[in-house]
Amino acid sequence: MQPPRGNALIGQSGGPTCVINQSLVGIVQAARASQSITNVYGALHGIKGVLEGKLIDLGRESEEALEAVARTPCAALRSVRKKPTREECEQALARFKQHDIRYFFYVGGNDSAETAHVLNELAVAEGYDVRLFHVPKTIDNDLRVNDHCPGYGSAARFVAMAMMGDNLDNRSLPGIKIDVVMGRHAGWLTAASVLARVHPDDGPHLVYVPEKVFDLEKFVADVERVYKQHGRCLIALSEGVHGADGKTLVEAKEKDSHGNVQLSGSGALGDLLAGEIKQRLGAKLRVRADTFGYLQRSFPGVISPVDAKEARAVGRMAVKLATGTKHAHGSVALVRAQAGPYRVTFEHTELRNVAKETRPMEAGLLKGDNDIDPCFLEYVRPLVGELPRPARLSDFALG
Amino acid sequence: MQPPRGNALIGQSGGPTCVINQSLVGIVQAARASQSITNVYGALHGIKGVLEGKLIDLGRESEEALEAVARTPCAALRSVRKKPTREECEQALARFKQHDIRYFFYVGGNDSAETAHVLNELAVAEGYDVRLFHVPKTIDNDLRVNDHCPGYGSAARFVAMAMMGDNLDNRSLPGIKIDVVMGRHAGWLTAASVLARVHPDDGPHLVYVPEKVFDLEKFVADVERVYKQHGRCLIALSEGVHGADGKTLVEAKEKDSHGNVQLSGSGALGDLLAGEIKQRLGAKLRVRADTFGYLQRSFPGVISPVDAKEARAVGRMAVKLATGTKHAHGSVALVRAQAGPYRVTFEHTELRNVAKETRPMEAGLLKGDNDIDPCFLEYVRPLVGELPRPARLSDFALG
Repeated sequence: MQPPRGNALIGQSGGPTCVINQSLVGIVQAARASQSITNVYGALHGIKGVLEGKLIDLGRESEEALEAVARTPCAALRSVRKKPTREECEQALARFKQHDIRYFFYVGGNDSAETAHVLNELAVAEGYDVRLFHVPKTIDNDLRVNDHCPGYGSAARFVAMAMMGDNLDNRSLPGIKIDVVMGRHAGWLTAASVLARVHPDDGPHLVYVPEKVFDLEKFVADVERVYKQHGRCLIALSEGVHGADGKTLVEAKEKDSHGNVQLSGSGALGDLLAGEIKQRLGAKLRVRADTFGYLQRSFPGVISPVDAKEARAVGRMAVKLATGTKHAHGSVALVRAQAGPYRVTFEHTELRNVAKETRPMEAGLLKGDNDIDPCFLEYVRPLVGELPRPARLSDFALG
Repeated sequence: MQPPRGNALIGQSGGPTCVINQSLVGIVQAARASQSITNVYGALHGIKGVLEGKLIDLGRESEEALEAVARTPCAALRSVRKKPTREECEQALARFKQHDIRYFFYVGGNDSAETAHVLNELAVAEGYDVRLFHVPKTIDNDLRVNDHCPGYGSAARFVAMAMMGDNLDNRSLPGIKIDVVMGRHAGWLTAASVLARVHPDDGPHLVYVPEKVFDLEKFVADVERVYKQHGRCLIALSEGVHGADGKTLVEAKEKDSHGNVQLSGSGALGDLLAGEIKQRLGAKLRVRADTFGYLQRSFPGVISPVDAKEARAVGRMAVKLATGTKHAHGSVALVRAQAGPYRVTFEHTELRNVAKETRPMEAGLLKGDNDIDPCFLEYVRPLVGELPRPARLSDFALG
């Protein structure tokens, strides 16, 4: 099964990460080195750019410029949230033919894998020889088959550091503090907040993820108990926590709202819970809520070295697979080959294996309904890199 | 005027910063080295600890432990927001006498300077020889006399980096984005967001500070204009922006609320403005709001080297002044001795000069009612240290 000869096109899709450009540059570098690939193009705003013909020539970028882009957070090709219709997929394929695109690399999450999958089925049906590859990326860490996803390590590093600082802030000026972390369907990113615990009484004292049903009564009781014990309470909570009916808390409150409830880019969930605590436990309590927001996926300078390296590697591996003789399409999966010392391998997987569905945290990683099991630390530590270590005074009593 | 001989006590007060422990350690180190100071104590939770007798012995901490604490954000002695009554000041003075405290160093903002000032007047009236010194600290950068305040550089560095990342995020997935920055009375921290601009079309495109009256109608028109021009709009806005009546927007909305309106630790302002934009410009617009929150004053690892160095230096200087023959009380003011290359001196100032009042940004640093003058960059750049430089693709057209 000989690889075709022609041009390669790259797109980036979905929410940004701090290392998504590492994957872009990995693809460009490997594509330039490949005998099968003539020119390397980029589509602006992913599939939208393909449809609108907004393509750029990545072959003219210098190595130096590419390395600078690789270190820069967020999609340098710009991104998009778009699930193309069947008709749009046909238009995209027509664009591929127009520019002799024989390789398409789509960097994104499970929706992007699904788009690549649909495009591939169409190309096969039409007999057009184009190799469609998905390159994994998501701070949510919820792609199936993968041990973890490029982008997660850096976002987890940000969450761990943010929680570490906020725990120190909460210790300085005690009160009840809620920190809302990204993650609609899976709690991986919220779970990373436990990396902030260094001393026995450090927060987060309570951790809520979407894998467990969220009960408001139980939550308030949990907070009250911790507050009585420590004189303060720091809470990490996924934006996607929901009741037994599957509805998020903001949805449940806003019964008249229509369509998708916006979870990110709003302080509504944190404010709602802070209000509930004050109402039930006392208006005079110092209750605050912060929503970590888009900083989690875009903050420059807080990048996990392992994450950056792996994001580059999956890009290169996608080109290697696409220009090989074994696979006409697929995705690259990160597999943990060895726990200690940490080692990963990059393997081929079918597009359908990572498309559509998401991967929640396994039950063994959770502890009760408001904490993370210590075994999660072994999983997550190698992914985020070394963290700062906060120090305390010894509080020696006067002699 | 010979310095007294006796023990020294240190307290930390108000909102934490990332370098407030540098000042603590600077004081401890200089106090240990002083011939006039016998023991070095710390008060837990500032003046509250003094009143409750919650004192610890800082003399027993190792140099290594102190250096680790210096690198850790937020008040290691824990903090407090408390303005003591006259009676409480008398109690504090009684505690000083009990422990032979002859030096009191209070690290904090203008309220802490005011507390030191009141304590000093009382000590003078009672004829008790104790040297009361305020050590400047605030991320708000709004202490009078000071060119800038320890703590500001690191918080400004965080805001600049957060805005840099969010600008990249907003370029990846365009829309209208509001970022709420700390600052009730002064816009110094919000102004630092302009450090994020590298390319001509980079955000923040609009910057609102409390020094200018905020007009909602004008704001919506500004946003609409920028959005039409760039296809996106990134906004930096101080939590303390207010209308002509002096009321903050959240206050103006919540007319039935009583007491102080809580500005930090809530997403209310950002959500309110996002709602107004959607309502006036179209519900289908992609409008998001993030409130940078407590991360601005506590995030470990994002610390300005200059800020850390200066925070240590003001602590040492306070001890030098207190144990000298010239001043029985006072504060340390940072004065910019030279703009380029940047150089500061640390000078004595009276407590009353920094107490109570705050210092807004000078009119010359502002540009119109929605931007910061470029001359502010010369002021702020040396304070935050070198920033990451985001890179872009050249967007070469297909050949």
